[in-house]
Amino acid sequence: MGPHPAVAAIRLAVRRVLHDVLTEYDRHTDKPGRAEFAEAGVGRQRATLPERPDTPLVLVACSGGADSMALASALAFESRKLAVRAGGITVDHNLQPGSALRAAEVVTRLGAMELDPVEAVSVHVGREGGPEAAARDARYAALDAAAERHGAAAVLLGHTRDDQAETVLLGLARGSGIRSLSGMAAASGRYRRPFLQLDRQTARKACLVQSLPVWDDPHNIDPAYTRSRLRHEGLPALEKALGKGVVEALARTAQLSRDDADALDTWAAEADRSVRDDAGQLECAKLHVLPPAVRRRVLRRALIEAGAPAGSLFARHIEEVDRLITGWRGQRAINLPGRVEAQRQGGRLVIRQSCSASG
Amino acid sequence: MGPHPAVAAIRLAVRRVLHDVLTEYDRHTDKPGRAEFAEAGVGRQRATLPERPDTPLVLVACSGGADSMALASALAFESRKLAVRAGGITVDHNLQPGSALRAAEVVTRLGAMELDPVEAVSVHVGREGGPEAAARDARYAALDAAAERHGAAAVLLGHTRDDQAETVLLGLARGSGIRSLSGMAAASGRYRRPFLQLDRQTARKACLVQSLPVWDDPHNIDPAYTRSRLRHEGLPALEKALGKGVVEALARTAQLSRDDADALDTWAAEADRSVRDDAGQLECAKLHVLPPAVRRRVLRRALIEAGAPAGSLFARHIEEVDRLITGWRGQRAINLPGRVEAQRQGGRLVIRQSCSASG
Repeated sequence: MGPHPAVAAIRLAVRRVLHDVLTEYDRHTDKPGRAEFAEAGVGRQRATLPERPDTPLVLVACSGGADSMALASALAFESRKLAVRAGGITVDHNLQPGSALRAAEVVTRLGAMELDPVEAVSVHVGREGGPEAAARDARYAALDAAAERHGAAAVLLGHTRDDQAETVLLGLARGSGIRSLSGMAAASGRYRRPFLQLDRQTARKACLVQSLPVWDDPHNIDPAYTRSRLRHEGLPALEKALGKGVVEALARTAQLSRDDADALDTWAAEADRSVRDDAGQLECAKLHVLPPAVRRRVLRRALIEAGAPAGSLFARHIEEVDRLITGWRGQRAINLPGRVEAQRQGGRLVIRQSCSASG
Repeated sequence: MGPHPAVAAIRLAVRRVLHDVLTEYDRHTDKPGRAEFAEAGVGRQRATLPERPDTPLVLVACSGGADSMALASALAFESRKLAVRAGGITVDHNLQPGSALRAAEVVTRLGAMELDPVEAVSVHVGREGGPEAAARDARYAALDAAAERHGAAAVLLGHTRDDQAETVLLGLARGSGIRSLSGMAAASGRYRRPFLQLDRQTARKACLVQSLPVWDDPHNIDPAYTRSRLRHEGLPALEKALGKGVVEALARTAQLSRDDADALDTWAAEADRSVRDDAGQLECAKLHVLPPAVRRRVLRRALIEAGAPAGSLFARHIEEVDRLITGWRGQRAINLPGRVEAQRQGGRLVIRQSCSASG
């Protein structure tokens, strides 16, 4: 008898990612074909694995919640069949009473899955960008440091399709275009998200049938958090209005938007070279004939290159600069974030950082 | 004392569109500069307008609801200042008891605004595509016919920014990419949507302060309709979770997505020419190096050209065909809507309509 379908699903998702990680690791370490070798030659027991001194370490980031506990269990299982060492990290955000105890419990549970190394990392969460962004920044900094310390080839994150749908809606609320609709990447640097196509219910079910105790973070149901309101009120109301397929549709939108945004960025990078004069100045006439979507991206690139912080540049800024090209009626220089100013001079768009302010 | 801000806002929106319509009309009829001429030379009274035999007719589509009544009132006002004739059409969908009486009332109200011609058109709504799509199809067919009959240069529609936000969410629920996120166009053929940047509240307020009686269509609050559920439950819940800027963000997303989709369609049309061999067959190796977003669009174009109905082609169909290029492992021919099949043969992607079925 095979495993429960939910357990089979989480394991398959992790297995696929581990194959990718191994293939990439072998490419870097110039040892091709190890993924196939290991899988063809071994049974299910770690003891039967051929010893390889250069086995990569894969860490799972685990909060103790259902998603990441399911992920940890699948990593523990699959790593025994592949030439992969598996460890786990839990981050203590120090935001709730008893969080250190909670982190210690997660360490115990990960250890019981025979993950090794297992570590709890305590962080201090600042205030920059709001409570959710600050917690996220602290968490990734700690995971990055842990990955470096242990020499991990990859860090797995437990984000599910439901998290992805929420992220797309959060991006939609910014109204800043398709890049912000593209959600979280399945692979980004050392991070991998094996469950991005899997729904939260499957992860939860996999914990249940494997008798894994899980922790429900009270923040997840605290209406003070935007994501929590979205999860418990916004998204269910959308599903009621639009039907049950909304989460899947949002996740698909993320993937399609990401590919579209990548392609348009590529185009803009190429166009950037063709719209400059010999001195490297942007020529308004050449900008004018670009498709608006490409022109706006070229402008955005130029503004960021001149020193405007990407996170402070909004669609309305780009539109205002764009009107120097498409709606020229002698406008004055436009002041932009990061003391950058844009003006039209003699058929050229001149973008520079002002030196008059402090700095 | 100027008009109430809401009235000023609806008039400005209509004035801008009428200028565009006049400019375009003059271009077609080879009479440049008339918009400027008319506005510079005249006061607010129709009587003072210089007589021009070729004055274009602009129709407003009016349901009697607040949005289109506000639009009709602004059209009536602005047309007196510009060399534009203004008329109105109301469509009786014959879906509710008393709809003919309702249509007659709208005709009376439009006539009282001195619109001319004014007409009620009765239509039969079929069942194809569900009740909302069928009503829309019947409505646009009737408006098209009326525009032809009266020789109208443009037909104004009262869709607001709120309608646009709803349309974006409906597109999002399809999960079929950024084209379906681009909502309604501000200008499409003979149709113009002057209120697409204006919120519903402004239109409603403009009716109130002008003492225009408006009709609330019971369909708009009937939870049997997806759009109605979205308007009264889905969108308010999203606003509660994400903040008041959601409607504006969705409308901005529509505009950005439309531009992005247009640019990518242009790219795909160009790429289409570069990926074919001398016999016009698609070469898999050349398709493979395109960005995924462009490749998928090239494939979609080719499938539609071969006879697949655009409305029946979903993201999953395109993905399956794409795997013949990016994940080739000897797959069989893929059957697609419209009896189209795609298969890989000798490094070429062969797409053709099957002749074996009826037809």
